[in-house]
Amino acid sequence: MAHIQLNNDLPGIVGLFNFRPETAEPLNALAETLLVHENSLTRGEREMIASSVSYWNDCHFCHSSHGAAAASLLNEPVDFLTEIKQGFPNIDVSPKMRALLRIARQVQKGGKHVTEEDIQNARDAGATDTEIHDTVLIAAAFCMYNRYVDGLATWAPKDDADFMPMGQMLAERGYTGAGVE
Amino acid sequence: MAHIQLNNDLPGIVGLFNFRPETAEPLNALAETLLVHENSLTRGEREMIASSVSYWNDCHFCHSSHGAAAASLLNEPVDFLTEIKQGFPNIDVSPKMRALLRIARQVQKGGKHVTEEDIQNARDAGATDTEIHDTVLIAAAFCMYNRYVDGLATWAPKDDADFMPMGQMLAERGYTGAGVE
Repeated sequence: MAHIQLNNDLPGIVGLFNFRPETAEPLNALAETLLVHENSLTRGEREMIASSVSYWNDCHFCHSSHGAAAASLLNEPVDFLTEIKQGFPNIDVSPKMRALLRIARQVQKGGKHVTEEDIQNARDAGATDTEIHDTVLIAAAFCMYNRYVDGLATWAPKDDADFMPMGQMLAERGYTGAGVE
Repeated sequence: MAHIQLNNDLPGIVGLFNFRPETAEPLNALAETLLVHENSLTRGEREMIASSVSYWNDCHFCHSSHGAAAASLLNEPVDFLTEIKQGFPNIDVSPKMRALLRIARQVQKGGKHVTEEDIQNARDAGATDTEIHDTVLIAAAFCMYNRYVDGLATWAPKDDADFMPMGQMLAERGYTGAGVE
């Protein structure tokens, strides 16, 4: 049960958005800008970063919903959520994406963990300054969404498969259209 | 020097907003909603939470700019930034605010650190569900802003006094008006 009386039984951040529409609006606008707007990183790649950071932060709802969005966008099966948890051992991930995921991992630990070497590795693998910027901001943003969802003890479905319809909806309609982070 | 080429010499998040206006817009809208909009927590109290979380995250720019905003709103001198660092040993802080600051501290560590007891203590001290919600979200949001500012290695003035004009501007104009987190 959530720490506060939400007056709805919606899962994760959806219940919080319903409780407080005034803060939902900029939170959804931020997700839409970071994860849906035109970008040289694909939507699937950005959801991979979002889901990975959420996993590192032990946020089941955000890891699963964004993992499901990534799976839908990349046409992967539900096992993709396990791939994300394990750091993509079995699928083809570009050296650039691996270097950006490494930066995201450092941001998750704390801003000052990102080193010049992490940045240089990403650049050497072909990442632009905007891609590095967006990776840092996506990772930072999920350190917020994850703490928001778990800091208020919202509930979430247990099974990976239960998140797939939500992932498909996010893939099709985005965040300002779907109202789910 | 920042990790990426910002093409400006503005400090902290201001330089990042200038580099990427598309993401600046929802980030500023979120700060305005959380820290400026009408709320049963005063603007000074909310800036105290923002500055405290930033200090715990070791983010000098955000701690100092939001501490300066709090000082301006509460009509306190520059020493107020030291009070924030030390957990307000010398000024009068209500039991409700102390309980909310405790919740913010737990959120900064990670969402799951917030306990039923933390919530009950805040309720017993008079906090409403919306105040608890907003405290969790402000703390979570600064776990984002702090990682964004330091993850890209932006620069900041060293001296507390150098932040006071920025704090006054934030107090007078807010975030969508000033363009500074």
